[in-house]
Amino acid sequence: MTRLRFGLIGTGFIGRMHAIALHAVGAVFDDIEAPLCSWLADADADLARKAAAALRFEHATGDWRELVARPDVDVVDICTPNYLHYDMALAVLAAGKHVYCEKPLALTPEQADELATAAARAGVCHAIGFNFVRNPILRHARAMIEAGELGQVHGFAGRNLEDYMGDAAVPHSWRCERRLAGSGALADLGSHLINLAHFLIGDIARVQASLKTVHATRLPRGGSQSLPVENEDIALVLVEFASGATGSFNISRVATGYKSGLGFTITGTRGTLEFDQERMNELRFYTADDRSGRRGFRTILTGPEHPDYARFCPAPGHGLGINDLKILEIHELIRAIESRQPIWPDFAEGARVQKLMAAIEHSHATRAWVETPR
Amino acid sequence: MTRLRFGLIGTGFIGRMHAIALHAVGAVFDDIEAPLCSWLADADADLARKAAAALRFEHATGDWRELVARPDVDVVDICTPNYLHYDMALAVLAAGKHVYCEKPLALTPEQADELATAAARAGVCHAIGFNFVRNPILRHARAMIEAGELGQVHGFAGRNLEDYMGDAAVPHSWRCERRLAGSGALADLGSHLINLAHFLIGDIARVQASLKTVHATRLPRGGSQSLPVENEDIALVLVEFASGATGSFNISRVATGYKSGLGFTITGTRGTLEFDQERMNELRFYTADDRSGRRGFRTILTGPEHPDYARFCPAPGHGLGINDLKILEIHELIRAIESRQPIWPDFAEGARVQKLMAAIEHSHATRAWVETPR
Amino acid sequence: MTRLRFGLIGTGFIGRMHAIALHAVGAVFDDIEAPLCSWLADADADLARKAAAALRFEHATGDWRELVARPDVDVVDICTPNYLHYDMALAVLAAGKHVYCEKPLALTPEQADELATAAARAGVCHAIGFNFVRNPILRHARAMIEAGELGQVHGFAGRNLEDYMGDAAVPHSWRCERRLAGSGALADLGSHLINLAHFLIGDIARVQASLKTVHATRLPRGGSQSLPVENEDIALVLVEFASGATGSFNISRVATGYKSGLGFTITGTRGTLEFDQERMNELRFYTADDRSGRRGFRTILTGPEHPDYARFCPAPGHGLGINDLKILEIHELIRAIESRQPIWPDFAEGARVQKLMAAIEHSHATRAWVETPR
Amino acid sequence: MTRLRFGLIGTGFIGRMHAIALHAVGAVFDDIEAPLCSWLADADADLARKAAAALRFEHATGDWRELVARPDVDVVDICTPNYLHYDMALAVLAAGKHVYCEKPLALTPEQADELATAAARAGVCHAIGFNFVRNPILRHARAMIEAGELGQVHGFAGRNLEDYMGDAAVPHSWRCERRLAGSGALADLGSHLINLAHFLIGDIARVQASLKTVHATRLPRGGSQSLPVENEDIALVLVEFASGATGSFNISRVATGYKSGLGFTITGTRGTLEFDQERMNELRFYTADDRSGRRGFRTILTGPEHPDYARFCPAPGHGLGINDLKILEIHELIRAIESRQPIWPDFAEGARVQKLMAAIEHSHATRAWVETPR
Repeated sequence: MTRLRFGLIGTGFIGRMHAIALHAVGAVFDDIEAPLCSWLADADADLARKAAAALRFEHATGDWRELVARPDVDVVDICTPNYLHYDMALAVLAAGKHVYCEKPLALTPEQADELATAAARAGVCHAIGFNFVRNPILRHARAMIEAGELGQVHGFAGRNLEDYMGDAAVPHSWRCERRLAGSGALADLGSHLINLAHFLIGDIARVQASLKTVHATRLPRGGSQSLPVENEDIALVLVEFASGATGSFNISRVATGYKSGLGFTITGTRGTLEFDQERMNELRFYTADDRSGRRGFRTILTGPEHPDYARFCPAPGHGLGINDLKILEIHELIRAIESRQPIWPDFAEGARVQKLMAAIEHSHATRAWVETPR
Repeated sequence: MTRLRFGLIGTGFIGRMHAIALHAVGAVFDDIEAPLCSWLADADADLARKAAAALRFEHATGDWRELVARPDVDVVDICTPNYLHYDMALAVLAAGKHVYCEKPLALTPEQADELATAAARAGVCHAIGFNFVRNPILRHARAMIEAGELGQVHGFAGRNLEDYMGDAAVPHSWRCERRLAGSGALADLGSHLINLAHFLIGDIARVQASLKTVHATRLPRGGSQSLPVENEDIALVLVEFASGATGSFNISRVATGYKSGLGFTITGTRGTLEFDQERMNELRFYTADDRSGRRGFRTILTGPEHPDYARFCPAPGHGLGINDLKILEIHELIRAIESRQPIWPDFAEGARVQKLMAAIEHSHATRAWVETPR
Repeated sequence: MTRLRFGLIGTGFIGRMHAIALHAVGAVFDDIEAPLCSWLADADADLARKAAAALRFEHATGDWRELVARPDVDVVDICTPNYLHYDMALAVLAAGKHVYCEKPLALTPEQADELATAAARAGVCHAIGFNFVRNPILRHARAMIEAGELGQVHGFAGRNLEDYMGDAAVPHSWRCERRLAGSGALADLGSHLINLAHFLIGDIARVQASLKTVHATRLPRGGSQSLPVENEDIALVLVEFASGATGSFNISRVATGYKSGLGFTITGTRGTLEFDQERMNELRFYTADDRSGRRGFRTILTGPEHPDYARFCPAPGHGLGINDLKILEIHELIRAIESRQPIWPDFAEGARVQKLMAAIEHSHATRAWVETPR
Repeated sequence: MTRLRFGLIGTGFIGRMHAIALHAVGAVFDDIEAPLCSWLADADADLARKAAAALRFEHATGDWRELVARPDVDVVDICTPNYLHYDMALAVLAAGKHVYCEKPLALTPEQADELATAAARAGVCHAIGFNFVRNPILRHARAMIEAGELGQVHGFAGRNLEDYMGDAAVPHSWRCERRLAGSGALADLGSHLINLAHFLIGDIARVQASLKTVHATRLPRGGSQSLPVENEDIALVLVEFASGATGSFNISRVATGYKSGLGFTITGTRGTLEFDQERMNELRFYTADDRSGRRGFRTILTGPEHPDYARFCPAPGHGLGINDLKILEIHELIRAIESRQPIWPDFAEGARVQKLMAAIEHSHATRAWVETPR
């Protein structure tokens, strides 16, 4: 095997996390070749040069199309704002390269579908950055559900709450514009929650939603003229799963006090699981099978009994961090490419999530239940 | 002032709690006359006699109508299964006596409305046993909201989760029958949550719901023939408040692991409040006004700064219990009667809650948003 | 059986809690006769009259000796400041009456021993108000330990932390004077912790302590001349139990932020138990016997499986309060008197605690390990 | 600046963590040159070769002395069992190279002193791997203490609890032998706690300790003959700081249920801080300066306001992991070398910790308070 050469587009928040993980993954895992941080692209050549120096990439360019075209790039990693995903991913697929795109896959279900179709045709590896499902404790949770430890699962109460736009004084940005961001809290936070629900419970049959924009306008940074916020701050959703389970999604980017409030309560006839990303190394588990007088929610700390934890640390309860989830994601990606196996979540899942987001918006607009397209 | 003579009908779970509180309230509060535990009625004379001995009532009867008619009964306290509330409360009102009825007020909104109208006409005190809102920490929460400490309130995520019918082996009972219980989780647990939402946020404008019965049939105790469960185990509701706030209710009697899971997250533009009845002496509060680097949810322990706590104990954080909420409720009741002031929650609130429950059921049946009657 | 007539001396914080419990206990328990609140004594006749009205006692007196002498008083309940316990308890025993005394039993081990000896001779019931051990969840904890669910117990880390004297501005009071209070945090908070350690682990063989007074002087209320604080704010103790287990006590009345921080971690070779009085309805339990990947501390909520909880409420997790512990204590007392059985904790235990407190002070003074007198 | 070439000795638990961090640190921080993973040494050449492949080091050797002697090694990183630290660190210092040694520095205070002296003379950078103090939230805690936010600090209750030797069936290993490990829980877990106490509170004046070995013998892996455990499982310590604050250490490797239970409660006259390594992204803070009725422990989540967090992720509350602490430690090390500034904790601190560990053992042996040598 030769080392895969990565090209990274975008060096903001999420781009830096990718870069860190690319450097570390080879030391964490020895069943893959360590990737090479080859090319980095940013909005202009100067920015790209600086970022490449900071993030230890070999080459820099101000033109992402050059990066895609480079023969010494095997995998293109897209970490740009939402509205750029579609064009970039299409270009990577057209170039016949492996593509690794941050969420959400696109701005519309049509775009997402087109990407998924193109990806399937291209015969390359196509991954989407739903990193939260890489958490060892959540993979353990899924295994527990599949093993029947909750009995029949009947409820999923999910939430993804942050407060980065809670303050009215947060300036207007691309996140507030429909043509740049698509939807609001839904695209940024809801997409993760939907993917997590798919991962743990399965297909969603129909939704009913209530969306809300708390701050209707915002001032641009340094400006004095308010601009409209074109997408929702809050999305509340009733959910009916194909399995018959029912649930709710509570999604907000104005949930004052929450910083990374992705979480859920999954109830079944014999047990319940709870998770909160702000305590990402803990899984709360209640089982009715415990002895009388000794039943209660127990807090399971992530440890070497849970998938891949031991690669980071053999001692239990010592704690993984958010960047470790990216390491796990990139490990899966490289393993998939090296073994020519499919990866999940892929672009098809990206499109499935996008369609559900559209169904939620449609439900709100029509005030009716909307069936999910199959 | 003379001491009020109480007649108690029903001596199950909730009846016992009322009896304990009636005996204690006079020592906790000195601004009222201590009530007298005069008459107790139960299903038959023998049961009533035993219960009267156990609960320290002076007299017993197997006929609740006799109790209502007794000249030495001033207040009738109704702690019977749901289907009996309507007849009993009507009879008490007809007798011109004060009435104190457990929730839900009735089985249907029509019954509840009739009771509320009769109560208003009777010129007596009419109280309904929504005891959770008596919690000093929740009265404090309401005061904080009213003082603007959360900024503009935009979200209410409420839940009332228990698991007393989570196990398929729990026998069929009156709770499963529509003509005896009315709705299921909604009447038993949802009614409290709705009242709490009214208390903290205000009028609900419309709802959209998804109900579900997890265990469609149950065996009666000792029987071998399954009987149908006629009402819902789970009610999930989207809520739009008259104020413009939006939210959700998650109500379940099959939520494995939850024992008294009444709780909420209330988000506003400047702060957030969280509560969980299983930790009923704690209020979690986040304020964006704290200094940078020092912000976080703080856990406020109930103490003498919160209404009426000091009557129980002058030292903070020593903890009230569920029965103390009944003492607080009965104190309010006696004070209202003695001062001829209205009490809240009263039968009008009981009817308002009942109508919302009906709207939730109607929404589920029609799969549409249902406006709340004003 | 006839109803026991109680005489209560002292109507501060703790006296009110006793009064409330005396009124309620008969409705909670039906295996005893409900007590009568007969006589109440306070510092002067006027105060006593007012308190008797407020706390619903039949008679009042400004002279506690009169109360002790009254033929219509069967049990004397002593809720006065520490320095009065000795004289009063001796007088009650001399009168051949049952005695129920708040902690600490006395100011010195000599006094306490004399009281224990007198009590044993008097042939009456003698109880001391260590109410925390009445908690159903702690009685359950003890049963779990005895059943070997922790394996061999090797550690007890206990604490009793409050902050009522944390602020330098808290005025000087009787609590700061050695001849009125005896020791400081040790007498007020440590006594409970020692009793709890006895209850759960057993005899303490030796101690090593470090005491500290954080605020060396305090202003009396309304005064301008600082007075010395004659006893400790903090007591830290190493403990070696007769069983071979070792542990530590952390006792403080200046532990900023703690309101009722009585708690412990008990570790054994197979399991661990944790408790925190501020969450008095929860017991945390870890057992190494859980399956791999599913181990973790579980939070057991008090419920009907735990001793006596169901007398208050049949539904689990609904929560007892601090005053319910006094109801449980008084129930034990009345049952002991009615059945002529001994009660625990009694005056012998009160003296044992007092001797340990003295050993702790002696250890601090001599900077040496001090063996506990047997 | 040129890139520093690291030589790593030892590839167990902690060695792997160092390797991961060495690869990642350059992408996290751009104010240093990224280090080179040059040489790796392990017990034999074959093991070393495999480890070098897995951990992405350029060269391997079975002879650590060769690694130390290599001209293409600038910094030697010692991650071997305790008994090897002394010889190796001395050799590195003799070779005039920078040295980075895992804790504890040595087996005895004499060895540690010798190393500290040699390090001071060598004029190189000498660091010891007390990584926990690198946590942004703990550096923030220290800044809060220094800024007086707790008022006068009077108490430090610290603990470091794990259960990796809790089970009697855990086999005998080098950790149980005095000549290989030195002390037991004290060296492995206590050393971190002592360093943390130094970091947050300062010098310790004297100690009083009680040590205990719960499992006196253990079977070697695969053996049938029990071997003695020569050092303590549990160390309980009373501590008096030079500042006048008092406290306690609770240290155990048999604390069933604890996986990474390094934690503390620091109390002051105006506020309190609490920390638990199992929730390493949280700091609990109580301040008496909050408004009445709103006081409570608040949970501060690590975020970009805390030192260096933003290098990993700009969004607050997203969570660092244990390996990120090593990245922070190595960043400090490289920055110190590049800037020729001292680092803390250094070998002098390593020796200071070792002397306190010896004082604790001496106190236990003599049953007396032991003054810390200055």
